[in-house]
Parts: sequence; C-alpha cells; structure tokens
Amino acid sequence: MRRGGRRRPRTAASDAVRKVDYHNLRNPFPQMKVFSDDRIAAIHDASLTVLRDLGIKVLLPEAREIFRKAGARVVGEMVYINRDLVDASLLTAPRSFRCKAGTRAKDLNMEPGALFFQPGAGAPHATDLKRGRRPGTGQDFREFVQITQAFDVLHMIPPVVEPQDIPMNLRHYFMMDAQLTLANKLPFVFSRGTPQVMESFEMIRDFRGLSDVDFAADSHCYTIINTNSPRTLDVPMAQGLIDFARHGQVSIVTPFTLMGAMAPITVAGALTLSHAEALASIALTQLTNPGAPVCYGTFTSNVDMKSGAPAFGTPEHFKASLAAGQLARLVDLPWRCAAGSAANVNDAQAANETQFGLWGCLMAGATVVIHSAGWLEGGLTVSFEKMITDLEVLQMVAEMCAETSADDAEIALDALAEVAPSGHFFGATHTMERYQTAFYEPLVGDWSNFGTWTERGSQNANDRATAIWQRILEEDQRPDLDTERVGALQDYIALRTEAGGANPES
Amino acid sequence: MRRGGRRRPRTAASDAVRKVDYHNLRNPFPQMKVFSDDRIAAIHDASLTVLRDLGIKVLLPEAREIFRKAGARVVGEMVYINRDLVDASLLTAPRSFRCKAGTRAKDLNMEPGALFFQPGAGAPHATDLKRGRRPGTGQDFREFVQITQAFDVLHMIPPVVEPQDIPMNLRHYFMMDAQLTLANKLPFVFSRGTPQVMESFEMIRDFRGLSDVDFAADSHCYTIINTNSPRTLDVPMAQGLIDFARHGQVSIVTPFTLMGAMAPITVAGALTLSHAEALASIALTQLTNPGAPVCYGTFTSNVDMKSGAPAFGTPEHFKASLAAGQLARLVDLPWRCAAGSAANVNDAQAANETQFGLWGCLMAGATVVIHSAGWLEGGLTVSFEKMITDLEVLQMVAEMCAETSADDAEIALDALAEVAPSGHFFGATHTMERYQTAFYEPLVGDWSNFGTWTERGSQNANDRATAIWQRILEEDQRPDLDTERVGALQDYIALRTEAGGANPES
Repeated sequence: MRRGGRRRPRTAASDAVRKVDYHNLRNPFPQMKVFSDDRIAAIHDASLTVLRDLGIKVLLPEAREIFRKAGARVVGEMVYINRDLVDASLLTAPRSFRCKAGTRAKDLNMEPGALFFQPGAGAPHATDLKRGRRPGTGQDFREFVQITQAFDVLHMIPPVVEPQDIPMNLRHYFMMDAQLTLANKLPFVFSRGTPQVMESFEMIRDFRGLSDVDFAADSHCYTIINTNSPRTLDVPMAQGLIDFARHGQVSIVTPFTLMGAMAPITVAGALTLSHAEALASIALTQLTNPGAPVCYGTFTSNVDMKSGAPAFGTPEHFKASLAAGQLARLVDLPWRCAAGSAANVNDAQAANETQFGLWGCLMAGATVVIHSAGWLEGGLTVSFEKMITDLEVLQMVAEMCAETSADDAEIALDALAEVAPSGHFFGATHTMERYQTAFYEPLVGDWSNFGTWTERGSQNANDRATAIWQRILEEDQRPDLDTERVGALQDYIALRTEAGGANPES
Repeated sequence: MRRGGRRRPRTAASDAVRKVDYHNLRNPFPQMKVFSDDRIAAIHDASLTVLRDLGIKVLLPEAREIFRKAGARVVGEMVYINRDLVDASLLTAPRSFRCKAGTRAKDLNMEPGALFFQPGAGAPHATDLKRGRRPGTGQDFREFVQITQAFDVLHMIPPVVEPQDIPMNLRHYFMMDAQLTLANKLPFVFSRGTPQVMESFEMIRDFRGLSDVDFAADSHCYTIINTNSPRTLDVPMAQGLIDFARHGQVSIVTPFTLMGAMAPITVAGALTLSHAEALASIALTQLTNPGAPVCYGTFTSNVDMKSGAPAFGTPEHFKASLAAGQLARLVDLPWRCAAGSAANVNDAQAANETQFGLWGCLMAGATVVIHSAGWLEGGLTVSFEKMITDLEVLQMVAEMCAETSADDAEIALDALAEVAPSGHFFGATHTMERYQTAFYEPLVGDWSNFGTWTERGSQNANDRATAIWQRILEEDQRPDLDTERVGALQDYIALRTEAGGANPES
C-alpha cells in the first residue's frame, strides 16, 4: 500500500472556484426494491381494504362531512372510504407543482425525481458544545433558520426546534418573522388550527407582495401532517389538510408509524397502515380542492422491543423507506422520506445512523428527505455540531448529482504519456489546468496527517463543527429584503399581538 | 411528530434468537453507473492503448520474459502489451472460483454478485482509547485476527496492522501462525518474495492437511498486488503474481491510483491508468498459469490539491468506485473495491467517510470491500474502536442482503383490525409472535433515551466500542483446531527460525 509523493502544484495560475449547483438536484441513484411489484400491489390493496372495512377515525366534523358528501360511509367519528374515492383523488393530485420561495433562484419544482433536503425538524431541545443541551428557544429557532439559509444543499426551512420561550398564541408570528426575514427559502407553517394558519398565509402573502389569487396559484409554504397512527386523524391535522388544500398550499402527509409500537411489527404491515393513512389524507385534500398540491410521505422505523425506544437508521428503517418508495411510485406523487438517529451525542453512532437512513431515502427515490442533518435522540434534540457534520454528507451526495465527464480530455492519454513510470502527476499540464476545481472541498472534514492535525490542536469533527456554526452566526448574512415589507410585517405582528394573538387548536 | 407509548411486551413466551446469515451474502443493491457504456468502452480502449504504446515498466526479469514469450514487445525494462494478449488472458481468467478456509462454513465463492467484507489493512499503526496510538505490534496483529474471526460479517483475514516488533525474516511465520491458529477464515499472504511466499504456502498446505495437488486445486489464501502507479510493476509484486498463479492461489490486483498524485486528476484518467495496470497484472497471472484465480481491483481516490494529502470517502472516490465497477463488469471478473477515511480519530468525519466510501463500493457492485472497518488516517492507523463502530454498519448492510417477506401474514390485516384507532401494537398477537426476532439488534448503538443514557454514564460510541473489543479479547474464543497440526506448525516455524528465517525481497 504505497503512497505517492505529496507536493503542492508549482503555480497557482488562477483563482478558479469550484461551482456545483446544489440547488437543482435530481436523484441520480438507482431505485431499489425491497418487495416484488405484486407484493407492493398487495400492500396497496390491503391499505384500501383497511380504509373501506376498518375505517379511519376523523376527529374534525368538517372533515367527516367532506368525506360523507363524497360517498364515504360515516359512523360516529369513523370514516369508511371506498376505493373509487381514493382512486379519484389520486387522479387529481398533481404529479408536479411549483413551490415559490422568496426569490426565483430558491423555488422548488416538487415532482418525482427531484431531490430536496431539509435539516432535522420538530425537536423540543437544542444542543451544542458551547451552551449545552436545553429546551429550544426563539434564539435557537432563529439560528437554525440562518444555518439552513447558509447552505444551498438545504432547500426548505423546517421548524428545526420548538421555540418554547415564545407563548403559543404568538409563536406563529415569531416563526414566520424569522423565516421571512432571515431566509428566502420555502417557509414552513404548523397546522395548529385555522386562525394561526390563516394569519401565517396572510403574512407570507403580503411579505411576498401577492394578491390572494397569486397566493393560491402557487405554493408559497408547506406544512407537515402527521396522522395519529394507528388510523386517527386529529382535529388540527385534518383542519390543516383542508386549509392548505383550500388555499393551494402544500401538505406533506407523513404517518409516523414505528413498527411494533403504533404500527404492526413487520415492514409490510407498517407500510400497509402508513399507506392507508396517507391515502386518506391525500383524499381529503383532493375532496377539498381537486388539484391541490400534496406530497405523499412516510416515516416508518422500528423500536427496541426490549424498551420500546424508537430507533432510526436501522435496516428495518431502510427497508421501510424502500417499500414506501415503491408505493410512492405506484401512486406517482412527489414524496417525503426521512433519515434520523437515536444517538444521544454526535458520535460515530449518530453519524452512521443518519447516513444509513439517508441512503435508504436516496435509494428509495425520495423527493424530500427530512431530518437529514442535526437530528439526535430520535428527534428530541437537534445538535448544532451534527447539523454541520451531516451537511458534509449532504454536500457529497449533491456532488454525486452532477454529471461527470469522461470525454477524451478527461481520459487524458496525453497526461499518461507525459508522466514517466513511477513518476507523479502533481505538475502535469493536465493537472495544472484542473487542480483548483477538480475536487470537492470538505466543509468540516480535515485531511491533514496525524502530525499536522496534532500540532493544530487535535480538533475532532465536533470541535471544527462548532467553529463553523459560530462563524455562520457571526457573519449574520441576510437575504435582500424590501424594508417596507419588513416594516409592514412587523406592524402586522404588533397589531395582532396587541389583539391577543391566536391560540393553537387541538 | 408524535411518539406512541413505550411498553415492553407483556410476556416473553420463548427465547427465540434472531438468526441472519452474514456469511453467504449476495449484493442486493442496484448497480449505479457514473459514465455511459460507450465512455466505459472508450476508457477500456484507452487502457489498451496505454499498454500497447506507452507500456509498463516491469522490474522482474522473469516477468518480462513471460510477457516476451507471449508476444509482448520488451525494450529494456519496458513491456508493451498488445490487445490480443490482454483479450486472451481475460478469456482464461475464471469468473468464479472457490476459496477454501479452515472449515467449509467459512469458504468463499469468489464471483461477481457475491459480497465479502474485510477490515482495514496494511496499517503501520494501531490505536485505541486504552493504549493510545503506537506502531503496530505482533500483539495488535493477533488481536485484530481475533476480532476479525469474531464477526461473521468479516469474511477474509487481511494484515490489519504491520507487526513491526517481529523481525522481517520471521514475520511471515508469525502472521501465518496467528491467522491459522486464532481463526479459520481465508488467510492472507504478503507477496514479499518467493521464499516467504513458498513457506507460507507450505504452512497452509500442511495445516489444512492437503497434498500439493489438493492445495493447487483450490485457493487457500490470497495476496494483494499493488502496482507501483503509474505504470510500474516492481519485483515482489510481479513475483507474487507469478508465484500465486503458479500455485493456484488468489491475487487481488489493486492499482492504488490517487487522482492528481500517481494518476491523472480526473476520474476517467485515473481509471484508464488503473485499468491498464490491472489488465497487465491479470495477463501476467494467466500467462503464468491459464485459469489461475485472480480478482480485478481498484483503489482510486483523490488528494487534497493544497497539501497533497490523500482523501477517502469523497465524491470523487465514490465516482471512481462506480467507474471501476463498470470496468469490472466489462471484464466480468470478481473484483475488489475499498472504503476508507482520512480522519485522525473515530469521530463523525471518520464514520461518514467510511460509510460514504462503502456505499460507493456497494453501488459499484464490488465483490470484496476492503478497509471497510477500522481504517483511519488514510490507512496509516487502524482503530480498535472504529473497527467496532464500522462493524455496526457492515452488519446493517448484511441485514439488507436477507430477503424480507411481504406475504399476507406480514401485511397483517388481522393485527390492523385488532388494534383500535390511536391504540398500540405492543401487545398485539402479531407482535407477540415476532418481537424477539423481528429487528436487528445493535452491536454498539445505544437507543436509550437521554435520561437513561445519562444515568448510565453518558458513554459515547467509542466508550462502548472499547468495552466490546475488550470483551472479545477477554473471551478469547478459538476455532476448533487439530492439536497435532498446531504442533507441527510450531515445529516447522521453530526449525525455520533456527535456520535464519526468510528475508523479504524488494
């Protein structure tokens, strides 16, 4: 195992910078199946049987009424949905739609084959090496919006942590202000009842300078809809599906079905349940507003059957993602999948679980991969350091999306002739022409040798990651904003706050 | 993002143990291409042009004579190989062959589609949290053999670390004794000249109780042949190819071609060189003994063009693996690929690089994945802790090789009917029948929640990995051995040692 001489190229002729588009990604990885096509069809059929014969509990009267009018059988809170109704909704749900961000360069074409990453989301806690583990605050929320904004490979803003120090009746103002003024990527809106949702829509509409018609013509924000597995759609989730569909905004439907806990212990069983709940939710959007944008989704992993603790980035999680991908292709919709880790610190376990889960998403052909950076403790904490170390992997995946040339200049017979046997290519013309932009440059990876690394203070990846997120926050780069609209947003929030805000519904 | 109740199943009816075959793996992952088929054909053609027009420097006179007799043009130390000669060697090189280990259960069928893992190999240093980083010793070598033996997912024994405290003239005795008496997996032999190789063959032959004819009829050991890129085959490597071919033992041919250093800076250029060197080496084995077992191989990654430091687990490494896989399929031989990391400690960078490189190998369709566990510092150190944390990933990959059922019992309509909306499946009949064996159980992963994990001492993955490798060494499990043969081996080594051993050739 030999190693060639290590020398720096003799001249630095230009200041060329490597430029790879991390925004417009298409998934280049071949899709993997875990089940045969006929067993996927059997799961789809079984899901339809679940909806028709076992039914789904829908806690919101308005939603039950929508289902009833469309021909579903409604008994008390139970809704029994027939196959025709599901089939019809799959015909009107759009395969492709545009999500408009704060600038056209950050817009997203949501469709099968596209690839979007989101950092970890929904964590009650934040952690970092400087400030320790604590309940998430408004400051944490804002900082994670800034970090999300700073990396092209993160395409949408999720609610990374819950800003627990902001009163619930004012939290949606705070979250919208942070997302609109610190970033220009697609913002997230919690489905916590119509009042908060409608006010969030208003803030986005006005900040983007849109009419109601313009607002509804494209998607300008998204929500995540978690069913209450098994087979329950609660009030705020059902209301969210209706409100978002009615106003042309995106619902990402995500049953959270841990095998052995809120779902059967088998991959096939858990996916049958998840698929049934997703189909019911998609149907509700299409009954509300045919053609409304909606993403199929799943989040199926397993639990430790000794303790009941959830696990992520496991073989079962990977297999569930593959099965979900097959079902998503069957219904031919853009869809969301998730990585994740149950580790308690950003160590080798944390890195390995998140990346293993990520490959499951990638080979499943996911359109949106959530929790792809920073998620610890099965989502109870997001780590600033893990955000950075996971971003390295996402950037490397994004590099794989770019085309690699193998034309005659790349095959480089001239360079091969130029360098003598046992020589080296450091100074070859072919090398000199390319060395500044040939390779991906690591974000947090340190490739220096052990001696140099020791001299520089033996910093591990977490130490280096700390410096990176601190630098991003210090630099405090803001998107170009219309100061008038910022002022109007602040006025709106002040007025609404004075009026008491809007409480969440449950 | 809700989480279901966490309860342990009410009864533990049986003591069923999950059993998944980690030995007989077939690669289940779809193969990915980085270049179009016609550009792969162009690379193959360019490699043949390199061999014919630029030639390869062969330092061993015997090897040059073999090439000359077969029709190659030889000028001084340069050998110019025509296409017909390469084509003929690819016709006789076997697509599939059997490697016999110490017990039939550990034999390997080496062929495209099979999947074998090796830990990191060839490191001058060893490191662990208890004893620190130090030059590799005989004790380290023996301990890594024991760890390799302990995990079914490791299929072959490589020279994990160099036992630097053992004199060079006796080192092959020491390494063979460790491999034969501490393990029963396929052993490795360094190609450090005919005397050491022939003595190693003798030791294996007699320890396995074989005649010369039996020994040559199957492969009982393997060597790694690194060309001296660019375009040089040195004395011990050329001699190794000849000696192993002559005795029916496996050469794994591996040009080590770092882009921008000992190879062109482009993936296509580096692979053109690597492929040419591999083809020349394969040709030498087939000219020596048509039908001799040989593996195609590559190890192509990039360097940091600022410092010249090698990098692994990068996008360029991944792409190079994919291109190598396409070339391996073109020549239709079993082939070796490699993961790896340039990190200096077992942190998130180390985990991410090794796993990223691993996925490159897997999606490239590699038969043998070397350096898949433990490798740090670009191969200058193997870490006991990283060995364990990487093994977790390999075991999870092995789990993906097993078939997953989606029959009606797995789809579980009965279980779905049994559990009410918003209920849980912990106690469902379907769960109770399966919970003990349903899921992969982690080796080093800890899924306990933050409170429990803190109470138990806040151990990170490295802390837990330390306990695991220590336990393996304490348990000191040995394979069943024929004491007479062990005695004969020791006598042989004592006699040869007394006679002065055998010096390596260079």
